[in-house]
Amino acid sequence: MESYHTQHSPFGAFASFTIGLVGAPGGFGQSLSGPADQNVYVGFRRSGEGWRLLPFFTPRASQESAFSGEEKDSGVDDLAALMPTQYRRELRLASDTWRAEEFEFALHTPFTNVPDPGTLDGTQARRLLAPVIYGSIGFDNSLGEASVELVFGINTPSRQLRPLCDTEPQLNGFAHGGDFGFATPAGKGVQAVQGFNLFDRKQMDPRGLFLLGNESGFVFTVPPGEVVSFPLALGFYQAGLVTTGMAGSYLYTRYFERLEDVLLHGLSYYRDAVAEAGRRDAELLESGLSAEQQFLIAQATHSYHGSTELLCCDEKNVVWVVNEGEYRMMNTFDLTVDQIFFELEWHPWTVRNVLDLFARRYCYRDDLRLPGGKTAEGGLSFTHDMGVVNHFTPPGLSSYECVGLEGCFSHMTMEQLVNWVLCAVTYSRRTGDRAWLAANQDTLAQCAESLRRRDNPDPALRDGLLKCDSTRCGAHGAEITTYDSLDVSLGQARNNLYLSVKALAAWQLIAAALDDLGDPAGAAAARADADRAAGSISSKFEKETGCFPAVFEAGNRARILPAVEGFAFPLYLDLDDLRHPSPALKTLLAQCRAHLAASLRPGVCLDSVTGGWKLSSSSTNTWFSKIALAQYVIRGLFADVLTPAAVAADKVHASWENTPGCGAMAMCDQIDSDTGIARGSKYYPRCVTTWLWLLEGTRRGT
Amino acid sequence: MESYHTQHSPFGAFASFTIGLVGAPGGFGQSLSGPADQNVYVGFRRSGEGWRLLPFFTPRASQESAFSGEEKDSGVDDLAALMPTQYRRELRLASDTWRAEEFEFALHTPFTNVPDPGTLDGTQARRLLAPVIYGSIGFDNSLGEASVELVFGINTPSRQLRPLCDTEPQLNGFAHGGDFGFATPAGKGVQAVQGFNLFDRKQMDPRGLFLLGNESGFVFTVPPGEVVSFPLALGFYQAGLVTTGMAGSYLYTRYFERLEDVLLHGLSYYRDAVAEAGRRDAELLESGLSAEQQFLIAQATHSYHGSTELLCCDEKNVVWVVNEGEYRMMNTFDLTVDQIFFELEWHPWTVRNVLDLFARRYCYRDDLRLPGGKTAEGGLSFTHDMGVVNHFTPPGLSSYECVGLEGCFSHMTMEQLVNWVLCAVTYSRRTGDRAWLAANQDTLAQCAESLRRRDNPDPALRDGLLKCDSTRCGAHGAEITTYDSLDVSLGQARNNLYLSVKALAAWQLIAAALDDLGDPAGAAAARADADRAAGSISSKFEKETGCFPAVFEAGNRARILPAVEGFAFPLYLDLDDLRHPSPALKTLLAQCRAHLAASLRPGVCLDSVTGGWKLSSSSTNTWFSKIALAQYVIRGLFADVLTPAAVAADKVHASWENTPGCGAMAMCDQIDSDTGIARGSKYYPRCVTTWLWLLEGTRRGT
Repeated sequence: MESYHTQHSPFGAFASFTIGLVGAPGGFGQSLSGPADQNVYVGFRRSGEGWRLLPFFTPRASQESAFSGEEKDSGVDDLAALMPTQYRRELRLASDTWRAEEFEFALHTPFTNVPDPGTLDGTQARRLLAPVIYGSIGFDNSLGEASVELVFGINTPSRQLRPLCDTEPQLNGFAHGGDFGFATPAGKGVQAVQGFNLFDRKQMDPRGLFLLGNESGFVFTVPPGEVVSFPLALGFYQAGLVTTGMAGSYLYTRYFERLEDVLLHGLSYYRDAVAEAGRRDAELLESGLSAEQQFLIAQATHSYHGSTELLCCDEKNVVWVVNEGEYRMMNTFDLTVDQIFFELEWHPWTVRNVLDLFARRYCYRDDLRLPGGKTAEGGLSFTHDMGVVNHFTPPGLSSYECVGLEGCFSHMTMEQLVNWVLCAVTYSRRTGDRAWLAANQDTLAQCAESLRRRDNPDPALRDGLLKCDSTRCGAHGAEITTYDSLDVSLGQARNNLYLSVKALAAWQLIAAALDDLGDPAGAAAARADADRAAGSISSKFEKETGCFPAVFEAGNRARILPAVEGFAFPLYLDLDDLRHPSPALKTLLAQCRAHLAASLRPGVCLDSVTGGWKLSSSSTNTWFSKIALAQYVIRGLFADVLTPAAVAADKVHASWENTPGCGAMAMCDQIDSDTGIARGSKYYPRCVTTWLWLLEGTRRGT
Repeated sequence: MESYHTQHSPFGAFASFTIGLVGAPGGFGQSLSGPADQNVYVGFRRSGEGWRLLPFFTPRASQESAFSGEEKDSGVDDLAALMPTQYRRELRLASDTWRAEEFEFALHTPFTNVPDPGTLDGTQARRLLAPVIYGSIGFDNSLGEASVELVFGINTPSRQLRPLCDTEPQLNGFAHGGDFGFATPAGKGVQAVQGFNLFDRKQMDPRGLFLLGNESGFVFTVPPGEVVSFPLALGFYQAGLVTTGMAGSYLYTRYFERLEDVLLHGLSYYRDAVAEAGRRDAELLESGLSAEQQFLIAQATHSYHGSTELLCCDEKNVVWVVNEGEYRMMNTFDLTVDQIFFELEWHPWTVRNVLDLFARRYCYRDDLRLPGGKTAEGGLSFTHDMGVVNHFTPPGLSSYECVGLEGCFSHMTMEQLVNWVLCAVTYSRRTGDRAWLAANQDTLAQCAESLRRRDNPDPALRDGLLKCDSTRCGAHGAEITTYDSLDVSLGQARNNLYLSVKALAAWQLIAAALDDLGDPAGAAAARADADRAAGSISSKFEKETGCFPAVFEAGNRARILPAVEGFAFPLYLDLDDLRHPSPALKTLLAQCRAHLAASLRPGVCLDSVTGGWKLSSSSTNTWFSKIALAQYVIRGLFADVLTPAAVAADKVHASWENTPGCGAMAMCDQIDSDTGIARGSKYYPRCVTTWLWLLEGTRRGT
């Protein structure tokens, strides 16, 4: 049964209005690690019948008894929750609609290209940065003979809402302090209601409200013969400093004075906003992708937006943060590198913004522990993240990376070094921002040198594979990759197949960048490094199995799909290096094709129970964002390995995300491939790697 | 078994650090309706043994598995919770101490006289308004042969803490965003620790911390042969606007820039603060009151402070708010009138501040519904409250009062009119602030006129009893009293014994005020009103039972102790009217004595199961704040009616509050007299009526 939460979020407000899971609360959540806990009441009542509501609530004890001192029956509510068989839900790229009989409720979360905020005037900034989303609630009563009532309201368990008209006479609605609220235009057929029980209001003050009641909303009346839809604005506002370490406030607070301002804007901009959302919806509908793919893109995009946070730090610097879903780590670099494809489409300057902050504050130089135990000078790299839960860590430190570990929470020095290179070149090539590239030429050169030293400090001994651990891991620790929690087949950085191919791609991009910068010698050297890597990786190919081992150590025999992940970047940039591969790369690509053909089989990298894609043959922990990325690469470079079973898995992946195993936490990344149940990385932004699917036809042709 | 939460709170910050209930979390709570949900870890470990902690926590699943994607056993914690038999707790007026063997932990919440903030310089303001409390953790290891470790830390389930040194190098500690935090001076034997599990830390960053861990604190080391106590500062901070309706920020934000500033102040002021707390403790210890009475005063004072909120509104006006415990209504007037005795001792200007706001914004003029149904012009009165959960209601409206009701949530027009009079005169008489009284002479006159009209608009028909309902109640509603949720014996305002006596007291106070204002004619008229009331109340005395009925209507035969509550004011002010009563009053007092003697018996107003005081013979819902007030009046005026059973009830009341039935929510007011379990009014400020007990010896002699 389809049942899943979706995050409905403005751009850059780190806020979501989350609903959708059947029989579950949600509502307004500010900077949370999961859905909020508000019952949301949305539904209709025909004359003489009971209320029928979408199932966004659980039964709650009335708060009345706390006041009356008596345990009272809260009364038999004359209401019923609609079950999924009684309504139709359609999640699109920027809207989410529920229809039951003649009733329709929709949330609209328009997004569009956002230019660098430095270039925006006030009007543009208000339009693009408003921390508001939009709703519509309506009924087609054209054939009805009596009025129909509609309801939209929420239960806020820990605090009553205040009527907005107290502070802004033009506003009809309710707010939770100054933090969030909702409004609809006052008018005929619209009544603001508030009480201990929205559907059985016993107490009313002279205005017809009851401020002690913790359920607040509107009752709308649709007369017989009419088709009416009422607009809603659902807004968020966080005043003042919200981050520490670097003291930051939301950039939107420069353009909106307070929540009331946001909601007034939302109501006045409503029509344009819904139209904008409609354009996004249409673009996805016309993409030619399957319904399952479209769902996965739409759901991923919704969760991505819920994690975005646009700040102004130290009173002057615009700082872009994507929070890491339930973990709320800030600008986790191994997410940035995957989300870049989406961001370059809609707001490429955010990529530059993050890279600049990594290069300025979140970088370090280390020493290396060589195989055998000796140490040597290392080089430049970058931290795993920039902090957690709105606290920016000090320069050179992440919230994640610890000392003395070999698994989760160890350092990701190699990984993040590769990630800076990939992001920097992908950004500059895709946007054509050569000036930025030129300004960062020295950093890029330091990255190249650092990459080489992590192969071997002695140039004569290099083979193109990263094999030294940073001494930041301590005497007994080892570097890990972003696949920290998967299993050893992907977690170890040293001699790692996934990371080796990604580093190869980094060399290809460095070469392209040096071409752009007019350094043909440097470019040639980088291409030589790429070829050296290709050759060394090739040499690890197991002729007898037709596969690569996941780690070039200790007889590892796991098969992994991220073997080819690194090719996403040259593929996306349509680099000649990939179009016209060198002999070494040609060999490697052929081996990869064989590896994939052998891996994309049930029991290897297709789960034998569900048929879903598994990143590794040796683990049932699979990550959907990385599946999507692998699909992009495989469809672009190795399409012939896709068996019908492998292609059919889109349906499996969609069914994981649209049922409670994942859907209880909106978009989830880490999933058990044999059950479809999320085991981590919930409420997660990274799955916008699905955006790449929309580029498949346009960039290379499949 | 003693087990109760106590709110440890700074002055005016609407914040508490709540601990004490056995086996329960608590911790830092900002503007909450009850305890927060943080495990608090406080205890010690001898060399070679396990940790032994005070029981301020419940077992929690480690958050590690969310990151690792694996369900791991969180490991066998080598720790045990101390049970109440293994430690001794001592709650004093401004401190709370737990001792186990050589271990000692204490919280210190100093308070003192706070002058009008307008008269304070910056240094004084920082000293008096700092939103910080103090802790000490120590061990007497003088006879030990090995080091002992101590721990203080908390688990914050929804957000990790940040190390304070990141933003303030001088500070050693942790903070929850900018909202709250704790610190101790850095130094030998002090280690800041952070992890998924404070007692089994597997991950450490280069600083020895782990920012993803949601348990944070300190481990202290006490060497053998030493006695060491480590200081703690526990601070709160809420920046910017916190109230709506009237836009207000905490006054302390004028004097403290941010949380770090508060904590630095707390550490530097630590010694003075603990000494100040010690002076308060000593004053109560030397009071001569019983241990149970001292406990009830101390616990009440702690909860009172947790509800206090000192604001600066509209950028210029100091506004004092006492929040109504779990309900969080603001300046509920029927609490103000009871808390006045405490406030006049420590910060009398807050009473004036509240009265001014009632007179300026939270007043109204109404019409009356006369017995029989006709309406007539009414007069001035005041709202029940000023809003709820930091939202100030519009002028003339409370959050509580609704239309068309006869019980809870109806209007309290008569009650609040009487309350303004009692508070105004008690304030001016006690403080000698004649200038304020003179400035409010017109309001007082309007109150007198309003009182008279609520008796009867026709002067010829007045009998001194309030018997008209405000038309604000609607066509079918009726006014109630503060005893809204008790039962009809106390709830109805019209012809109510409790309210009639309270109105009589109001006339006595008006007379005294008019004496002060040089209006002997007015004073004489007021005394006539008092006598008229005394006579009419007297006439309701039931000779056959020797009691008053609670309501002079419908054959009501309930017996109530608040019959004499109103006398608290003339008693407190030591008015001549009470010292040398008029004949009418003399008669009434004699009847009251008989009434009390008949009522203070098991099965009437002493609960037949527990022996606790019951406000009404017809309800087991009893309110401790009002019991304390009645005790003050009875001991002051009718001491001879106190049987040993009635006196012994202090032990019963203390046992209600120091066990989980009430103690789970710190000080509670509404209690079931047959079980001792709170049924409402939890986490409540009003029980500082107990402060009157400390005045009994000094003002009149018992």
